[in-house]
Amino acid sequence: MSRLNGPARTNRPAKLIDVARHAGVSTGTVSNVLNHPDKVKEGTSARVMRSIEHLGFVRDTNASSLANGGSHDIGLVVIDLANSIFLDAARGAQSTARAAGLNLLMAGSENDFGVQSSNVDSFIGARVAGLLLAPMQDSSAQIQRLTKRHVPVVLVNYDPGTDHACSVIVDNDAAGYIAARHLIDLGRRRIAFVSVDWDLQPVEQRRHGIRRAVAETDGAVTLEEIVADDLEVGSGNAIARQVAARDAAERPDAVVAVTDNLAVGFIEQAADLGIDVPGDIAVMGTDDNTSAARCRLTLTTVTMQGRQLGAVAMELLMDEIRHGRDEHRHQRVVLTPQLVVQQSTVR
Amino acid sequence: MSRLNGPARTNRPAKLIDVARHAGVSTGTVSNVLNHPDKVKEGTSARVMRSIEHLGFVRDTNASSLANGGSHDIGLVVIDLANSIFLDAARGAQSTARAAGLNLLMAGSENDFGVQSSNVDSFIGARVAGLLLAPMQDSSAQIQRLTKRHVPVVLVNYDPGTDHACSVIVDNDAAGYIAARHLIDLGRRRIAFVSVDWDLQPVEQRRHGIRRAVAETDGAVTLEEIVADDLEVGSGNAIARQVAARDAAERPDAVVAVTDNLAVGFIEQAADLGIDVPGDIAVMGTDDNTSAARCRLTLTTVTMQGRQLGAVAMELLMDEIRHGRDEHRHQRVVLTPQLVVQQSTVR
Repeated sequence: MSRLNGPARTNRPAKLIDVARHAGVSTGTVSNVLNHPDKVKEGTSARVMRSIEHLGFVRDTNASSLANGGSHDIGLVVIDLANSIFLDAARGAQSTARAAGLNLLMAGSENDFGVQSSNVDSFIGARVAGLLLAPMQDSSAQIQRLTKRHVPVVLVNYDPGTDHACSVIVDNDAAGYIAARHLIDLGRRRIAFVSVDWDLQPVEQRRHGIRRAVAETDGAVTLEEIVADDLEVGSGNAIARQVAARDAAERPDAVVAVTDNLAVGFIEQAADLGIDVPGDIAVMGTDDNTSAARCRLTLTTVTMQGRQLGAVAMELLMDEIRHGRDEHRHQRVVLTPQLVVQQSTVR
Repeated sequence: MSRLNGPARTNRPAKLIDVARHAGVSTGTVSNVLNHPDKVKEGTSARVMRSIEHLGFVRDTNASSLANGGSHDIGLVVIDLANSIFLDAARGAQSTARAAGLNLLMAGSENDFGVQSSNVDSFIGARVAGLLLAPMQDSSAQIQRLTKRHVPVVLVNYDPGTDHACSVIVDNDAAGYIAARHLIDLGRRRIAFVSVDWDLQPVEQRRHGIRRAVAETDGAVTLEEIVADDLEVGSGNAIARQVAARDAAERPDAVVAVTDNLAVGFIEQAADLGIDVPGDIAVMGTDDNTSAARCRLTLTTVTMQGRQLGAVAMELLMDEIRHGRDEHRHQRVVLTPQLVVQQSTVR
């Protein structure tokens, strides 16, 4: 890629300082020509305008904000674009940012910690005014890099367990509890929780909530935990084959899958094997993922409050940008999820 | 927002040239210290490292690519994040970019041409190596700004009608044709097309395709065109109330809505008014929008090939970046949509 490695001069846009040097004036004078022309002598103004023309300097929102010292761009780095919670968060963050005259730029990390790291660095390089970070694991090193550059950061959908940064999370324990409670209220007595055995914060917390709801039944309801290979549709298919191979009496009468994609995979395969959903087995997800795979039934799930997640995170970030690190107090905001009942649990 | 308007120095990350000045060496020497330390005398190296430390210069992917003259960041500006075609395009573009070692940064335009313009400027300011632009209308001025800064641009889901830039589009005429053909094949004879009377390229083209399919029946099938206020759920609700108010014999037996959101709005309201979908009226969308509102039935629709749209656009952009404007030849790529049959047309 010769262009990517070519000489710096060819595609570098002219900056305010280039115009100042070319015209032989200070950057403040260039800024005045653009923002307060009345303060500048006519001859100087004309010289600056000729330099602007000559260098192809285009004044834009970004350039003019850089001229007065701050970017109007906010970065958002999310785990993956394939889970709609992050898209919803982006939408929430964007409308809040937009209302304040700020621009949101986004990057997805494709479930890869290295990609997340280079996304963070891209935004540092792009000189954003602040960053919203939805990390996949402990990201202290990246947060330190941001702090060193004085870029405020708010964590989204991840509890850092420290007060070094603001964070906005969804109550995943409540999500698990609400899901299991729904199935118990429907009269289901043998619940299976399908998830993975990785050390993922939301999975741990949802498992805890499900166990809590089942424990409250004093033994009237049993809980079986089934470990899938990953969180995707194919693994949901595999679990359905496993369950279908059992005697009917040994099967669960309800399945809570930790992701909607696992639930969709289970439903599609189970139906193909002659299991009636929701008649024989009621199935639900717990992450209200509109980006999940297509399903023959609409899916009962639990909302993850993505829009609020993004909107609240942006509010906290703007507070930190506005007041600076010394006057701003970090906060931890917890949002409550909601049940969405559809065809996969109630006919 | 004092921070946004504060002095330029406080949050500007140190650049390679700052390190070079502080250490009293050339930028080439700083680059060598970082990339080829063996080429640099030990005393010089130590001095540069002390300057790096002192200035808080953090070497990251972005900074190191800027050092050799090109950014590894690609920008993507889309009309709106609320239509999944653009998310799919982002995913396709991202995996293609990632495979080439490039980073994708995105921005949504909230259906606002002014927002689109500031997004383009933000990416110019962030010095991306190239831009994918999914515009909402003729964007020649923005394309000219990009060209002036030597930033290659590829148009996504919009046919510029010129050869000033590469473009990748979906065959919207085929989308309309496929939709109407499906309903005709199901035996439906009174089709209504629900859309808006705005001058939108995809709407015009889908209408044309639907008319073509109906014309082929030589009068066996009739086509009624219903104009909605906008493309959202509420307008779908309103059209359903309008249709339900007619005598049953005067109602269409099939509805093609130009967006999935219009279709969902129609289905939800029609069902509440006692119309059986798909029994009385088969209903479908034509933009396979997984970000559409929740519906009680799974929706028949037409895929918009979002992933390929993004992947092909990124390939074209990388070709232009690699070969430069003079050796690159602009192309126009047309993708073919596919039918997805679900509950809203076939029980």
